[in-house]
Amino acid sequence: MDNVRVIEVKENVFASNIRNADELRARMKEQGTLLVNLMSSPGAGKTTLLSQTIDALAGEMKIGVIEADVDSAVDAETVRMHGAKAVQVHTGGMCHLDAGMTDQGLAELGYEGLDLVFIENVGNLICPAEFDTGAAAKAMILSTPEGHDKPLKYPLMFEVSDVVLVSKMDVAPYFDFDMDEFEKNVRLRNKDVRILPLSAKTGEGMDVWLDWLRAQVAAWKA
Amino acid sequence: MDNVRVIEVKENVFASNIRNADELRARMKEQGTLLVNLMSSPGAGKTTLLSQTIDALAGEMKIGVIEADVDSAVDAETVRMHGAKAVQVHTGGMCHLDAGMTDQGLAELGYEGLDLVFIENVGNLICPAEFDTGAAAKAMILSTPEGHDKPLKYPLMFEVSDVVLVSKMDVAPYFDFDMDEFEKNVRLRNKDVRILPLSAKTGEGMDVWLDWLRAQVAAWKA
Repeated sequence: MDNVRVIEVKENVFASNIRNADELRARMKEQGTLLVNLMSSPGAGKTTLLSQTIDALAGEMKIGVIEADVDSAVDAETVRMHGAKAVQVHTGGMCHLDAGMTDQGLAELGYEGLDLVFIENVGNLICPAEFDTGAAAKAMILSTPEGHDKPLKYPLMFEVSDVVLVSKMDVAPYFDFDMDEFEKNVRLRNKDVRILPLSAKTGEGMDVWLDWLRAQVAAWKA
Repeated sequence: MDNVRVIEVKENVFASNIRNADELRARMKEQGTLLVNLMSSPGAGKTTLLSQTIDALAGEMKIGVIEADVDSAVDAETVRMHGAKAVQVHTGGMCHLDAGMTDQGLAELGYEGLDLVFIENVGNLICPAEFDTGAAAKAMILSTPEGHDKPLKYPLMFEVSDVVLVSKMDVAPYFDFDMDEFEKNVRLRNKDVRILPLSAKTGEGMDVWLDWLRAQVAAWKA
């Protein structure tokens, strides 16, 4: 019985969240700021990827980051050290960021004049996939130690993502990560999504990711 | 406003879940079956650890497994191949298993005569920590590729666990995983929890884990 009640409320929350998200997206479009929602499991390498992305695009575009976590401010401190504007949002035990929380984060951040704002979502392959944050694009990271079967278990995350980054490619051989199997599993859920293998450690694939970002920013401002 | 409503309902759900969990725990105690809730991020190695645990304890005790996932049945098939009784529970998009779902899983599994039943919870460090499944013991796995800062970001999971297994120790050097830092971070949340480093690949630490399980089963039946 309790389950049924939860689901009803959840649907109200979803509907109202989608309205907020659409409204936020329209404001960001007007402002010419691309909002990218970055999602992954804990420890897949979101903060490392962001730090290297900020370094690589320094001088080329102005970047902000909204760090979402249940607790701590370690990630905001890290990306700030790389020169990005950053705020930390605590979700109060929630396993995702919604559009309202994102809006609060953006207000705190001050996004005027920024070309690109990343949301580093809560580390989790389930809830973040369900909630529209108002971002214009969704990127997810799957790290090779997690295994190539993950699209079977977390289908929605792979379904909603606009790009799938496969991180920690440098250690793939230690984990029997099979890229062909992975791609086959991803395709069951998302026929067209770009799959970009990379390693923030060796730099492999970073240029493709940066070009993808540049194209998204240019298209958003057009 | 929506957020407030969600939280109110959530608290009702929590209260009713705890009643169900206590009732389930009492039944399992009477039956002499130890229920262990195993939690971790996606790909931390729950299924691999379970497979090796089942192999190692074969002949010594009768083991069942409830596999919880948003989708797929790959894990149930894997542990069945290792000779354990296994059922797959789909959570319908939910990011955790609650006591009601566990009860349904146990009914389907048929736990009479089993010494030990594992719940392999949904891969996630947030929601599974919040919901009492009715298990007698909670074990969590943190894999070294995830990093030693995770207790700062997912405090509740480390707080509620009775044992913290640190998996993939064989690859720790590739990930700059600092065990001293990790232990310091865990102790901020849980002063007394056992921390067991292990590698299912090399077998390191498996004997300590198996002894911990044997002691829990013996105490539960006493």
